[in-house]
Amino acid sequence: MRVGIYTYGNLGRGCELAVRAEEDMELVAVFTRRPPESVVTVYESTRVLPVSDALMYENEIDVLLICGGSASDLPTMSLRLAEHFNIVDSFDTHACVEEHFRACNTAAVRSGHTALISAGWDPGIFSLIRMLFSSLGAECHTFWGEGVSQGHSEAIRRIKGVAAAVEYTVPNESAVKTVRCGESVDKYAMHRRICYVTPEEGADTALIRDKIINMPEYFFGYETEVHFISMREMTENHGKMPHGGRVIVSGASGLLCENPYSAEFSIKLSSNPEFTAKLLVAYARAVYKMSLRADFGAKTVLDIPLSDISPLSPIQKRKNFI
Amino acid sequence: MRVGIYTYGNLGRGCELAVRAEEDMELVAVFTRRPPESVVTVYESTRVLPVSDALMYENEIDVLLICGGSASDLPTMSLRLAEHFNIVDSFDTHACVEEHFRACNTAAVRSGHTALISAGWDPGIFSLIRMLFSSLGAECHTFWGEGVSQGHSEAIRRIKGVAAAVEYTVPNESAVKTVRCGESVDKYAMHRRICYVTPEEGADTALIRDKIINMPEYFFGYETEVHFISMREMTENHGKMPHGGRVIVSGASGLLCENPYSAEFSIKLSSNPEFTAKLLVAYARAVYKMSLRADFGAKTVLDIPLSDISPLSPIQKRKNFI
Repeated sequence: MRVGIYTYGNLGRGCELAVRAEEDMELVAVFTRRPPESVVTVYESTRVLPVSDALMYENEIDVLLICGGSASDLPTMSLRLAEHFNIVDSFDTHACVEEHFRACNTAAVRSGHTALISAGWDPGIFSLIRMLFSSLGAECHTFWGEGVSQGHSEAIRRIKGVAAAVEYTVPNESAVKTVRCGESVDKYAMHRRICYVTPEEGADTALIRDKIINMPEYFFGYETEVHFISMREMTENHGKMPHGGRVIVSGASGLLCENPYSAEFSIKLSSNPEFTAKLLVAYARAVYKMSLRADFGAKTVLDIPLSDISPLSPIQKRKNFI
Repeated sequence: MRVGIYTYGNLGRGCELAVRAEEDMELVAVFTRRPPESVVTVYESTRVLPVSDALMYENEIDVLLICGGSASDLPTMSLRLAEHFNIVDSFDTHACVEEHFRACNTAAVRSGHTALISAGWDPGIFSLIRMLFSSLGAECHTFWGEGVSQGHSEAIRRIKGVAAAVEYTVPNESAVKTVRCGESVDKYAMHRRICYVTPEEGADTALIRDKIINMPEYFFGYETEVHFISMREMTENHGKMPHGGRVIVSGASGLLCENPYSAEFSIKLSSNPEFTAKLLVAYARAVYKMSLRADFGAKTVLDIPLSDISPLSPIQKRKNFI
């Protein structure tokens, strides 16, 4: 399987590591928006090319991993590239998934490609868990963190006067306990948001704080802390990208729902982009198989038989995992 | 969707409850090995027929749920019925899955049916988790319990002089902790086995205890407790069928595996057969869809896109779960 990586940030770097670790995959090239000679890859032998060269590799790449951001890159990038490649992306703006799906579906069906959108852990693995238990009639609650939210961090960075920012999403353990008992909690009571902000010189920190805590969708309504720190402290203490989360399930069986059951799925990651990359790379295998079966169009993880992500034989899979 | 239930024990009863709760399903009949007039179903309106009538309903049942036991029923029952019906079974003798798969596959391919074997939670949901994380290069360890193991309970009941028996499989929390730290543990150190046995009058309890603790595969090598109790105590205190378990995952990312990650999936059930039945019924939906696509032969949960188990529209599924 010949794989390409489109744009080279943290996720792209994780994909380089993950593709090179797979015996059945060959990394054709990394495509970058920066000057290729300025890009330092993990492996010296990795070929780095400008994004403008990508289409020249249309027939040499079986699956292209799209590693741009959800806010501004993927909505145009994925559907444009799905005209030429089988792709995998990690689009994670929940509210816009359907729109993105439709756009990619049109492009992929027209050109005869398979386009997996919203792969990763949430959306991704967590989607599978929610789908599975909801189909049994259970309630599912998702908590994120403690960890760095890229989306929230970026939202802060867009505020005037902010030089650098990191947001940690922290689940409220009291809400976790409530949900574990099968009860509901208010959406805003589920998480706290802790923000570390390095202001530009002379910036009005009171105004920045005000803009953060009142930002709709992202912070307004949540318990939000804002800490202003130096750039040195930011670099030294907030450069890691840990994350994690859990899906808590409660349901019942029996004629009168007299027999409760519960389930919980949790993950804890010291590197969110590297773990997400591992998932994208495993799912690339499924995308390639689907394209070989002429199963074209946009897909989500819900549409993919899990056996397709493994390179093992069907017999080995049954022996090892069933 | 027209559904049938083949044999009516605890699992069959759970399936009756689960099928009747689904709006897109109709319960055609329960087939029993006992005299039909002696069978008390949950719903008075449920039609009860002898198993010998089942083949007369070949064209009136879209999926038949096979609710026999793994030890003596399913190896012959499932493959015989896969000649005439789309089926779902919960075959759980791990060592014999491949043999069972092949037999059912031959029958189902020949007759143009879809046969899902080994559905449930383990094998089943746990298989999905093991498959997913193993494909990322992680280690997976499975613990069962605390709960009643049907297989172990039955193995005790087969000993001469035993009137009734229940075995509880109990995970060793020290082994759970070791595995959570990413270390391995000896298979026999993972679980304890606690047995409650009602002897027949005049039976040699020392001999029964000896036979239990030395039984290969089931008890030998494990820390095993045997308690002899009266039939009254058995009936009063050990009639429930709780169970549960967890899959503990540990892996790492990064060039030098410097970034560890962990995951854990756990379930806790107050009624094992009712929960298993819910899974069988949801997966019956997928089996029916596969048969309509002429995707015949034997399948496991690894081969099934999760979206197929839900009655919702593709758009609703993306909206609710992605």
